[in-house]
Amino acid sequence: MVFSTVGTRTAPRPGGRSARVQEAVHRAARELTAELGREALTVPMIATRAGVTPSTIYRRWGDLAELLADVSVERMRPEGEPADTGSLRGDLLAWAEQYNEEMSSQPGQGMLRDVLSAQSPDDRPSCRCAGFVALQIGVLLDRARTRGEATPPVDRVMDMLVAPLLFRLLFTPAPATADEIAGWIDASLATAGS
Amino acid sequence: MVFSTVGTRTAPRPGGRSARVQEAVHRAARELTAELGREALTVPMIATRAGVTPSTIYRRWGDLAELLADVSVERMRPEGEPADTGSLRGDLLAWAEQYNEEMSSQPGQGMLRDVLSAQSPDDRPSCRCAGFVALQIGVLLDRARTRGEATPPVDRVMDMLVAPLLFRLLFTPAPATADEIAGWIDASLATAGS
Repeated sequence: MVFSTVGTRTAPRPGGRSARVQEAVHRAARELTAELGREALTVPMIATRAGVTPSTIYRRWGDLAELLADVSVERMRPEGEPADTGSLRGDLLAWAEQYNEEMSSQPGQGMLRDVLSAQSPDDRPSCRCAGFVALQIGVLLDRARTRGEATPPVDRVMDMLVAPLLFRLLFTPAPATADEIAGWIDASLATAGS
Repeated sequence: MVFSTVGTRTAPRPGGRSARVQEAVHRAARELTAELGREALTVPMIATRAGVTPSTIYRRWGDLAELLADVSVERMRPEGEPADTGSLRGDLLAWAEQYNEEMSSQPGQGMLRDVLSAQSPDDRPSCRCAGFVALQIGVLLDRARTRGEATPPVDRVMDMLVAPLLFRLLFTPAPATADEIAGWIDASLATAGS
């Protein structure tokens, strides 16, 4: 498994002081982004809204880009189990079409840009996002094995489905089509058992 | 072909005033990045070094992120034909290993971050980079067809080789291994003619 899962820096003890600061700062950043747009944000502005000092933010997040990346990672955290359609092919189609739709929207493109713009060498926000995706795909594969279906390994689905999906979102003018997504899913399922 | 090629905004008439301004500003940005690091750069600083006014830079590039993305795109423009090893498999291996090595280096990671951080909706720097890659792959495929080899379409090589390569560089802690790259190349070649 080449994908990192949840980072340590943003997983403070729930309900503790650190968690309350994080929640207040994240909420302030989300609200101000909605009100003023991302380009207008500054660290002092977010600190004032959150009721903390700017140095609290700099100490914890480093800079504005890191903070915005952290906020975007949290917004990309899945909210529940992916839909169960009765087959692995159906589950992957439903997951991929929804992910593609969300990430090709303007907020989705902004989140991808945020997580890729941060520097953080040892706990990259982009890796945490890919970790969330790998966990979701893993749930679908576990479910399929319980049904008795043959499944490819999660890394292969990441390389053959998630990678071209993200490549189209990031490096081409238009996102993948439903036909292309179905083709990638069929190609990865054809390798199951090998 | 889903990949855009060279953008219009950065292709001024060679030798003209606009081309000379671009060259001076790009050179100033490259020099100051090398001397001070990317984080220290400002538009006025680059303008002074280039001998232009800041408003020239804002008018032409919009903001610092756009300028740095443009500089990085130009640095990612291939300098010549990719190596001819005598077979398509060998050519793709040589190209992919070199690209992976360059883009996993610290300057390569910085260039990827720059081109992905810019906003520019209609002439995205990342699309121009992918366009360069598609052109290089296209050269290898043309060469293979001249040799009489069966070839997959360029879009398929982008999805099955370039996409997972970039996915590993951007979203996982470590770049692809030589074995993984060879596996992706073999899988895309296995689809040739279909």
